[in-house]
Amino acid sequence: MTDGLFIAFEGGDGAGKSTQVRLLADALGALGREVVVTRQPGGTPLGAAIRDLVLHGDHVSPRAEALLFAADKAHHVDQLIRPAMGRGAVVVTDRYTDSSVAYQGSGRDLGAVEVHDLQMWAVDSLVPDLTVIVDVPSEEGRRRRGEVHDRLESEGDTFHDTVRQHFLAMAQGAPERYLVVDGTASPEAIHEAVLGRLVASGLVEVGSP
Amino acid sequence: MTDGLFIAFEGGDGAGKSTQVRLLADALGALGREVVVTRQPGGTPLGAAIRDLVLHGDHVSPRAEALLFAADKAHHVDQLIRPAMGRGAVVVTDRYTDSSVAYQGSGRDLGAVEVHDLQMWAVDSLVPDLTVIVDVPSEEGRRRRGEVHDRLESEGDTFHDTVRQHFLAMAQGAPERYLVVDGTASPEAIHEAVLGRLVASGLVEVGSP
Repeated sequence: MTDGLFIAFEGGDGAGKSTQVRLLADALGALGREVVVTRQPGGTPLGAAIRDLVLHGDHVSPRAEALLFAADKAHHVDQLIRPAMGRGAVVVTDRYTDSSVAYQGSGRDLGAVEVHDLQMWAVDSLVPDLTVIVDVPSEEGRRRRGEVHDRLESEGDTFHDTVRQHFLAMAQGAPERYLVVDGTASPEAIHEAVLGRLVASGLVEVGSP
Repeated sequence: MTDGLFIAFEGGDGAGKSTQVRLLADALGALGREVVVTRQPGGTPLGAAIRDLVLHGDHVSPRAEALLFAADKAHHVDQLIRPAMGRGAVVVTDRYTDSSVAYQGSGRDLGAVEVHDLQMWAVDSLVPDLTVIVDVPSEEGRRRRGEVHDRLESEGDTFHDTVRQHFLAMAQGAPERYLVVDGTASPEAIHEAVLGRLVASGLVEVGSP
């Protein structure tokens, strides 16, 4: 049996993460792998309920928000991600712990270190084999976000800039576990870069099955 | 302006906490204090939604459960308890952090120390001026629980025994912040003991207003 694999896509709203998640899932599926596509927050029924509470409810205090996102993560890892990896599947997630650290830890008034520690406790230290940061310049991100859909998306530009810088800093801190791609490139070019990195690092084999 | 005061009632299901909360609130109100009565989980609209998720939903992984209770606590303290104390009110709560530590930390498979640390982070270290443990022997507790109302109440006797021992151990560890009362005594006798302790420790004055 092939080992399970865990890949996360991170980046600002409107960066094109969901397109890349789909392209990668299709490519890995074509290589014969079982692929489980998921998202955070909201990858389980409990997570979806939590997502509704946080994104569409009234004011949520900063610590409560961080804890709710952590609860979603804990449940998601326990119920979906670890079981899928255990049977050899590739799990591809649209957002994971880094989003929580970037959004709650640097964009708001909690410390990034404490939010990181909280997230790591929640997921019992499960770190992706590769995290892809889909990076877009702040102005382009703003243009892409367009209409405001929820409470987080309606935050100001400074907030989104801080979040973006936090993603980039995390990638710089652990280059062996991160790939930063230019989100203004074509979806196909980005996808090739992601697949290339997975093959180059030995995480995915493209030889005959 | 009088200083705010924070009093928590803890104990197993069916111990008679809610009766004591009401009796104390009435007594303090009669002394001219503003009294805010609340409960955890569920003392705010967000908390009520969280309570429904945890107690009446499907299986919730242990870490997610601990994080959800912590989120409720964080929001509750931030939105209701600290503001009330800030204007000099007495806050009386039916359950607080000790319940989470006892139920999630000792009754389940998480460590009590890590659940305690999580709870303290959630409430930004707000500890009650007095915590009253309404203690009932395990057999009496089982009789009182009677019909099963939710998922936690349906746990076995060993679980409830462990929870009870954990409450008693917390009280033993910090006697200046705890009062253990015999839940099999009459409601009036218990109430007198609680009020007596509050007066004796200088937390409540019974002289003319």
